[in-house]
Amino acid sequence: MSELRKDPLHDRWVIVSPERGKRPGSFLTSRRTWEFCPFCEGNEWSTPPEIVADREPGSRPNEKGWRVRVFPNKFPALRIEGVLDRKEIGIFSKMGGLGAHEIIVETPEHEKPLQELSEDHIERVIRIYRHRIEDLYRDNRLKYIIVFKNWGDLAGASIPHSHSQVIAIPIIPKNLRDEYDKSTDYFKRQKRCIFCNMIRDEIKFEKRIVYENQYFIACTAFASAFPFETHILPKTHSCNFTSINEGEICSLADVLKIVLKKLMKATDNAPYNFVIHNAPNPTSREVTWELIDKAFHWHIEIIPRLTRIAGFEWGTGFYINPVSPEDAAQYLREV
Amino acid sequence: MSELRKDPLHDRWVIVSPERGKRPGSFLTSRRTWEFCPFCEGNEWSTPPEIVADREPGSRPNEKGWRVRVFPNKFPALRIEGVLDRKEIGIFSKMGGLGAHEIIVETPEHEKPLQELSEDHIERVIRIYRHRIEDLYRDNRLKYIIVFKNWGDLAGASIPHSHSQVIAIPIIPKNLRDEYDKSTDYFKRQKRCIFCNMIRDEIKFEKRIVYENQYFIACTAFASAFPFETHILPKTHSCNFTSINEGEICSLADVLKIVLKKLMKATDNAPYNFVIHNAPNPTSREVTWELIDKAFHWHIEIIPRLTRIAGFEWGTGFYINPVSPEDAAQYLREV
Repeated sequence: MSELRKDPLHDRWVIVSPERGKRPGSFLTSRRTWEFCPFCEGNEWSTPPEIVADREPGSRPNEKGWRVRVFPNKFPALRIEGVLDRKEIGIFSKMGGLGAHEIIVETPEHEKPLQELSEDHIERVIRIYRHRIEDLYRDNRLKYIIVFKNWGDLAGASIPHSHSQVIAIPIIPKNLRDEYDKSTDYFKRQKRCIFCNMIRDEIKFEKRIVYENQYFIACTAFASAFPFETHILPKTHSCNFTSINEGEICSLADVLKIVLKKLMKATDNAPYNFVIHNAPNPTSREVTWELIDKAFHWHIEIIPRLTRIAGFEWGTGFYINPVSPEDAAQYLREV
Repeated sequence: MSELRKDPLHDRWVIVSPERGKRPGSFLTSRRTWEFCPFCEGNEWSTPPEIVADREPGSRPNEKGWRVRVFPNKFPALRIEGVLDRKEIGIFSKMGGLGAHEIIVETPEHEKPLQELSEDHIERVIRIYRHRIEDLYRDNRLKYIIVFKNWGDLAGASIPHSHSQVIAIPIIPKNLRDEYDKSTDYFKRQKRCIFCNMIRDEIKFEKRIVYENQYFIACTAFASAFPFETHILPKTHSCNFTSINEGEICSLADVLKIVLKKLMKATDNAPYNFVIHNAPNPTSREVTWELIDKAFHWHIEIIPRLTRIAGFEWGTGFYINPVSPEDAAQYLREV
């Protein structure tokens, strides 16, 4: 059974998940290559039963005929059956490992990366993201849901077949709490969303824009911690990814496909992570929803994994980025 | 010229250092292997001139005969000649890239890892760490000095010859500010150092102790973010690494050698990072020194790089650790 532990010096929670644990030797950094792919069409029997899928009409659950397929992670970091029994042991706090951990296989085709799927297919993936967040937020115990993608072995993908993941956790994680705190502080002072102001400034400045369409803008971040780090933001204010409508889904599929293709070209197919930064569960009592709703702005952060996170970065939380965000954006625009 | 940029949403500074920059292709994650090693004895001409060295009597600077040798990084993230001209551009802040970036080569022998050096030699390395911190803190502009080591390609070491690094920065980095804030908050409430209390609790609990000698204790951390993460703390309260005396240096060399050897055995020589977490420059006006002096406790964090930092961890600041700290400590005690 996994548990959550809080680091009293950094207000950072950690999932201690020995269910995933193995003997030390099995953590070696080189991974095995898989002969058999559990995510391929025809191998549905090898995964836990599906939660939801985008399927061809007439096809049946856990059989062929799906376009996007969701099931629980076979080796979950957290399980929905957990209990939230918070305990304080001296200076330390811990609680049960309650949550959810799901896999979204984006395509039945083993060799097809997300950015090579048709726009129509990427829209289907985005609708599935929305479905999972809406569905899991019905459980009041789940305070935050993270949708993310690891692409490539060095970015943490243990199976090469293109997939995203969903993890639902019973607390608001540190980085998001920081974003909520800073954006609500800013809102109280300026009566404006900090992200809306950033978008306005980026459009004026032009030099960090990578791509723009009707509803979205993609920019390299002013203080990018990683080379070619790119953020995608909706131009219209919204704190919650699930508010996305059909027109916006179409526009997001376009920007995601184009930006990922540009990044792959610029970085010679470097591994990457992307993460949707979203509002917490509206029922969470840890935040004031009325403020979050106005002050926070959902967005996607894409991080190509070109540099290593080493002692300096881990020890200080201070990053060294060897490519200026303006140079990176120019390169990405032109590529 | 490098510059510092602040991320307004996370209070995190980033060094944008295009001096180290190359074209995108050169960031690919596989590194070259070096035929020629600039850190080897006899190749002193190939590095910038040395700042200090522990040398055999009679030997001359920048020639053979050194045991531990310090020189500026040839490709520094920051330079001492910079200027601190802080600018605000709308919501963004930036300042000049002032600082220092030095290399400490721990041994003239190319093949010798730190933990295989004699205790006497490790003591010499520790004295050099102390010297660099003392020397650089004379410059009031440098608010924090980080001494760290990346061992192995996957931990960020671009040259395999065993070395440590020193980076001096003109701000207090986020992670350390968090540690100072939390420990001073605790001190105000409890009139005790949180680390001293942790050490007392760990000695009572026993199960997370890896090794102990006269002046130091090594434990796995209660909320370890990484498997086999081990912290070394002085048993006597001190906020500042430079307060270390000859008896403590001897004791630290012993614990460092034994713990690193145990970690190498347990993890089958996994790459690792270690970082000294220290007090800021006493002249820094960003902190109340009298409080830091009583509330903060210097320590070393060692992180074997067995798991990948992927989308989830980067996006949330929330880590999944597949090995319980108690199991890890038991394994390390017995190995």
